[in-house]
Amino acid sequence: MAETARQIADDLRARISSGELTPGDRVPGEPALVREYGVAKETARRALTLLVDEGLAVRRRGSGTYVREFRPIPRVANKRLAEDGWGAGKSIWDADLGDRQYTVTDLQVYESEPPRQVAKLLELDESELVVVRSRRYVVEGEPVQRATSYLPARDVRESPITQENPGEGGIYGRLADLGLKPVRFTEELRARMPSQEESSLLALSAGTPVVEICRVAFTANGRPIEVNQMLLDAGVYVMRYHLES
Amino acid sequence: MAETARQIADDLRARISSGELTPGDRVPGEPALVREYGVAKETARRALTLLVDEGLAVRRRGSGTYVREFRPIPRVANKRLAEDGWGAGKSIWDADLGDRQYTVTDLQVYESEPPRQVAKLLELDESELVVVRSRRYVVEGEPVQRATSYLPARDVRESPITQENPGEGGIYGRLADLGLKPVRFTEELRARMPSQEESSLLALSAGTPVVEICRVAFTANGRPIEVNQMLLDAGVYVMRYHLES
Repeated sequence: MAETARQIADDLRARISSGELTPGDRVPGEPALVREYGVAKETARRALTLLVDEGLAVRRRGSGTYVREFRPIPRVANKRLAEDGWGAGKSIWDADLGDRQYTVTDLQVYESEPPRQVAKLLELDESELVVVRSRRYVVEGEPVQRATSYLPARDVRESPITQENPGEGGIYGRLADLGLKPVRFTEELRARMPSQEESSLLALSAGTPVVEICRVAFTANGRPIEVNQMLLDAGVYVMRYHLES
Repeated sequence: MAETARQIADDLRARISSGELTPGDRVPGEPALVREYGVAKETARRALTLLVDEGLAVRRRGSGTYVREFRPIPRVANKRLAEDGWGAGKSIWDADLGDRQYTVTDLQVYESEPPRQVAKLLELDESELVVVRSRRYVVEGEPVQRATSYLPARDVRESPITQENPGEGGIYGRLADLGLKPVRFTEELRARMPSQEESSLLALSAGTPVVEICRVAFTANGRPIEVNQMLLDAGVYVMRYHLES
């Protein structure tokens, strides 16, 4: 029985990868599968659940199961961080989206004690505080990313970095004004399943992992000046890096 | 009821993030949760399932539920691809593991038609073939990655790249011998849930995503010379990139 559900799922998967079923298409429902394969309703349901668990399909309440639409947002790290991007007054984020519109929601700017991991990355002393900028990005009505930046409070406390809108070129532009221009970056990526809280924060459907990216920005002196912890909906992002030997 | 299961899961999650339960520890089982929270066995089971689905815990048949052990393998792209790595006769992979041992299994080398996507990336004409090198990497008894390299057959057909062991410095060393040294690379990453086949290939436990990495290597002339499609167990890898503005 379980074997049969798997065979039906294999079949549906083949139809998706061959392009017979394309993103956004409705996958044959339980009654159709019951008719087509002569199986019990429970077996048909299990086959559909397998596709949903793999993230290949999504369920819409009261409507059925659909091939997941994956319209990736390319996240080109080098382009994002290139000085000719933010140096010329652009937001880093613009590079990701081309013509697509994004909205920043839930922006919060405040001073606080750093998480231990952040304190370590920023090489802060015990009692030092950070300025935290956290926000969520929404593209075409869907939340796609949460990003939380941490900067040493002693360096940026008096600057526009503590304002909701830090001005043209964003916080990297302001860091440059302060003589703390970021010139090198390390990004560390990890993928995992979200917690329930993260899942609701990014309105993730079942079977969608998240990508965590932790970026550290360094000045020319090698001083860590910002840590940005990002949580991305893995269903919409493709991360791209250019490297030289 | 579902709410209660979620509360218990929240509680267990807090115990894991606080370090009260550490990786490898046994999570309180159904009987213990029934006693501790005064809930039905079914509710206790559901709470544990939530943790497993999130990838925080794994079930071991007949033994119970355990906090997932995450002992990451850092994958430092720049170090991996730096010429002073493979240029000096080292395998790219060595950079990932430090002292930990890996084994290559299921190595296959053959000539074939390229997948359409690969043909496009390698800028091949319609009828051109590729040399394919596919293998699985096993670390401490666990399969952690499948990697499949594609190279234009006309360039490498007569070289040691078609042999199981291409010699010191691996295939990049041999490409250099052929005057086709790779000097620039693009890596594109995506995370998703695995198919059943991929899941068994990498022996993944429930709630573990995979990371797909597609790397294209270019010669100094900008000619694409290799495409490597990798599938990584997201439960063991951390990807690291160094960038400059």
